[in-house]
Amino acid sequence: MGEEIGFLGLGIMGKAMAVNLLRHGFKLTVWNRTLSKCDELVEHGASVGETPAAVVKKCKYTIGMLSDPAAALSVVFDKDGVLEHICTGKGYIDMSTVDADTSSKISEAITSKGGHFLEAPVSGSKKPAEDGQLVILAAGEKALYEQALPAFNVMGKKSFFLGHVGNGARMKLVVNMIMGSMMNAFSEGLELADRSGLNPQTLLDVLDLAAIANPMFKMKGPPMLQNNYTPAFPLKHQQKDMRLALALGDENAISMPVAAAANEAFKKARNLGLGDLDFSAVHQTVKGGEL
Amino acid sequence: MGEEIGFLGLGIMGKAMAVNLLRHGFKLTVWNRTLSKCDELVEHGASVGETPAAVVKKCKYTIGMLSDPAAALSVVFDKDGVLEHICTGKGYIDMSTVDADTSSKISEAITSKGGHFLEAPVSGSKKPAEDGQLVILAAGEKALYEQALPAFNVMGKKSFFLGHVGNGARMKLVVNMIMGSMMNAFSEGLELADRSGLNPQTLLDVLDLAAIANPMFKMKGPPMLQNNYTPAFPLKHQQKDMRLALALGDENAISMPVAAAANEAFKKARNLGLGDLDFSAVHQTVKGGEL
Amino acid sequence: MGEEIGFLGLGIMGKAMAVNLLRHGFKLTVWNRTLSKCDELVEHGASVGETPAAVVKKCKYTIGMLSDPAAALSVVFDKDGVLEHICTGKGYIDMSTVDADTSSKISEAITSKGGHFLEAPVSGSKKPAEDGQLVILAAGEKALYEQALPAFNVMGKKSFFLGHVGNGARMKLVVNMIMGSMMNAFSEGLELADRSGLNPQTLLDVLDLAAIANPMFKMKGPPMLQNNYTPAFPLKHQQKDMRLALALGDENAISMPVAAAANEAFKKARNLGLGDLDFSAVHQTVKGGEL
Amino acid sequence: MGEEIGFLGLGIMGKAMAVNLLRHGFKLTVWNRTLSKCDELVEHGASVGETPAAVVKKCKYTIGMLSDPAAALSVVFDKDGVLEHICTGKGYIDMSTVDADTSSKISEAITSKGGHFLEAPVSGSKKPAEDGQLVILAAGEKALYEQALPAFNVMGKKSFFLGHVGNGARMKLVVNMIMGSMMNAFSEGLELADRSGLNPQTLLDVLDLAAIANPMFKMKGPPMLQNNYTPAFPLKHQQKDMRLALALGDENAISMPVAAAANEAFKKARNLGLGDLDFSAVHQTVKGGEL
Repeated sequence: MGEEIGFLGLGIMGKAMAVNLLRHGFKLTVWNRTLSKCDELVEHGASVGETPAAVVKKCKYTIGMLSDPAAALSVVFDKDGVLEHICTGKGYIDMSTVDADTSSKISEAITSKGGHFLEAPVSGSKKPAEDGQLVILAAGEKALYEQALPAFNVMGKKSFFLGHVGNGARMKLVVNMIMGSMMNAFSEGLELADRSGLNPQTLLDVLDLAAIANPMFKMKGPPMLQNNYTPAFPLKHQQKDMRLALALGDENAISMPVAAAANEAFKKARNLGLGDLDFSAVHQTVKGGEL
Repeated sequence: MGEEIGFLGLGIMGKAMAVNLLRHGFKLTVWNRTLSKCDELVEHGASVGETPAAVVKKCKYTIGMLSDPAAALSVVFDKDGVLEHICTGKGYIDMSTVDADTSSKISEAITSKGGHFLEAPVSGSKKPAEDGQLVILAAGEKALYEQALPAFNVMGKKSFFLGHVGNGARMKLVVNMIMGSMMNAFSEGLELADRSGLNPQTLLDVLDLAAIANPMFKMKGPPMLQNNYTPAFPLKHQQKDMRLALALGDENAISMPVAAAANEAFKKARNLGLGDLDFSAVHQTVKGGEL
Repeated sequence: MGEEIGFLGLGIMGKAMAVNLLRHGFKLTVWNRTLSKCDELVEHGASVGETPAAVVKKCKYTIGMLSDPAAALSVVFDKDGVLEHICTGKGYIDMSTVDADTSSKISEAITSKGGHFLEAPVSGSKKPAEDGQLVILAAGEKALYEQALPAFNVMGKKSFFLGHVGNGARMKLVVNMIMGSMMNAFSEGLELADRSGLNPQTLLDVLDLAAIANPMFKMKGPPMLQNNYTPAFPLKHQQKDMRLALALGDENAISMPVAAAANEAFKKARNLGLGDLDFSAVHQTVKGGEL
Repeated sequence: MGEEIGFLGLGIMGKAMAVNLLRHGFKLTVWNRTLSKCDELVEHGASVGETPAAVVKKCKYTIGMLSDPAAALSVVFDKDGVLEHICTGKGYIDMSTVDADTSSKISEAITSKGGHFLEAPVSGSKKPAEDGQLVILAAGEKALYEQALPAFNVMGKKSFFLGHVGNGARMKLVVNMIMGSMMNAFSEGLELADRSGLNPQTLLDVLDLAAIANPMFKMKGPPMLQNNYTPAFPLKHQQKDMRLALALGDENAISMPVAAAANEAFKKARNLGLGDLDFSAVHQTVKGGEL
């Protein structure tokens, strides 16, 4: 753990991950667009870099955890960005959740300068980030993956190396597609129980003892029965992932009728104005659409 | 546990449940169509009744665990059947998996003689039956449910009382409908991963760490990747349950597009000759249908 | 045309068909539950029978055109019904729209008395009935079909002999299933045009010149654009036919995903309270469900 | 008809349209990549331009009828292309079938030089082109539409002006989406009839007399019953149009479950290797997929 790691982006997720690394003895040089956000990290022992370029210059490899594709592109391509000092022997690991196109664009720019690149989107939110319980879906340069493994082992309960760039994004799409279809299946079941004279709360109890018991049903079921869809994963983002997964299937001539039906239900939910609620709000399309 | 309980039907499930009851100190009088199957139970301390009627005559309440609706009807209505000695103060509990119509027919016959009736289908197979880990979905006479609770607590990890007769069957349908849609979602995801250049085994590993992780994916995934669909729950039965669940929804004007798409995929699998394989063989409809 | 034909049932359809036969020189003996409805037919030259049995006694063959399965069964099985005088050498032709079960029940009763039976449901409503422009879907006894052909040629622009009893009902189901899916396709197209900035009236004009131009689009399109769904064929009946057609497919292991999706849309429309409107009201499920 | 019209592209469609215009007294200056193809037109009285630019220079407005988006872009943007002489007061009408993006690109280039632009894709193939029976879906500059109306009236049985550029392509998508869903409904019906013991040829006869009778069923039905799918409109192009229509719906939050189910069936057909056959080959997905 001797060498310094760069860390760009100290939002909710980035801060939790960086603090966790510092606690485990890693040396970090951090940067954030609003530099004051670095203060708390400094208390935990971090150094601060003035710009992404400065961080990259100082560190063997640098991790980025930005909020969206635009921010992920900006720290790389803008003035004083990653590209200015990336070079042979240095690595850049983008852990933001971005689409395959954005990831490819960054990858090409980094590698054309001789740098190593890894995309490594994560599964898990704030709490798992704080607890080092993320799941890390890495793809790109294998050597960089191995170099970063000690850090991944601290941030995540498990990390996967998935091959060439784009596979991290693709794996997330597949998982989210299954999740979206399951949420529809669950919603249909809740409504069928309710309207058939069964107690839907009892259905939740029975499901929790069945071979299909899973944390999502356990966590989302009770608020859904209250028509409570406080957004954790917004429905419009879930629908976007269904669309992209279906498009990925289309490229490969795979017919996925259940995912397609689920996608249309999510569109219906958008049509009813539920796009900003949690994706569990697709439940309302089975109920009749009246909140 | 003083009073004697009757137990009719010693197939794979019935035998496991009866042995378990004897081990926990219950006194049983057992009957099976092939009487020699009673021998092992006698070794565990059971008495034997010559006919279902004889068992009912001797016991305060009697449990039936028959293989199918025809057998469930036969032990009740045939000569020397349950009906001959059921009367006020006695109870009959049918734990077989039968349709709502069969259950209603038995219920009406029992109650018209003054007897108490409970349907109590179970979720779980041989191993959970041996280990007392079944889930029991009971419906009918509440007083009989409470009388049988000590026995249910031994046979199952959890029992539910669901109200009037038919609700046990309905609850199983709802759970199986969700399960059938999930199996399709899972199959589509496995194929999408495979054809998009991802390792489907890695998808299984990632899923097992996700919020949608569940025992069914864990258990069925590896054989599915081997195109191994040894039947645990035959596809044609799963499709029948989808059909019945959709019909239940139709009665109540509930639109369930994801279950409907899943149902058509199961029909397609039947069309491809896969009806006797495990319901996970619906996977083949996503792959192109060639085994 | 020498011989007398019996005619039972003078509702909207029956009256129009009977008048048409009289105009073409056929001799009819008519009966209706409310006998006063026979008066107008008498003006056109018909005789009146006091009961269905009396009509059958007098005529070589008798046509029934009843409003629903219950009425169709009643004229045959009730006191003074068709069965009392049907016998070898006499025929009964049921032109009512009934399900295959009802048709089979009537068929068995008639043939067990030595009579000939034909089911002959029609496609077309009041106007085609008056103009002799019905389409007749006959099935059962071929000899009776040939005997009735002169009358069919007057009532219909075309008649088909489809084989054994039940095939007439089955053919109607297949046609109505295609129609129901088409109505959904049409509704989706109208809404897509409207929301994409195209004039839906222009879409109607373009469709009317395309290879998919058909009388249904031409007739239903303009009122649909006005949200006018005055019932010609009630939505709940269309949905029932979709359900029965899918069940027929299920028996034969045929997967029909488009019909299944259309069926769920019709269920959604029932869920929104549109079951008694015209089946074109499924249009509202694409729009968002608010009338 | 005094002024000269330019005409670029003399393939099957372009030649038929140009000959038709000449027969009706229009003066044409024609160009084709392979200039020898102009000879037949010269016999009918046409002049020849050496390059697209030369044609545009000579004519008040010029029509393009190219085989695909690449060719449509090439005649405009390449050396000696339309752009070189387009200017204020001149018009260019692209009657090729291209996507909205291609159309927009051409439109922007033409109008930025001061020229007028119209997209005008047609519905109909060789025979309607020869007979002046096309349907013309025009969008763009209204004044140019009115200027070209005499020519449109000769080439088409009907022309529509649909508003701003892109609406021509959109209208084709909507029509093709409805057509694709209908083809699936038709395929399902044919198979249901066949497997339920009905003669599918009789179904065709019955359909042809029904309110849903249309030229497509009449034309495609008989070869489909022979498993003959000689390509008129390739399945992969139909599936592409379904995909684009669903994407158009997605933009506008329109849920179209029937089109989505049809789209998945077309993907399944591609998966079975039927993409280059006629789009009616989706029929095979209902049959089981074995040719």
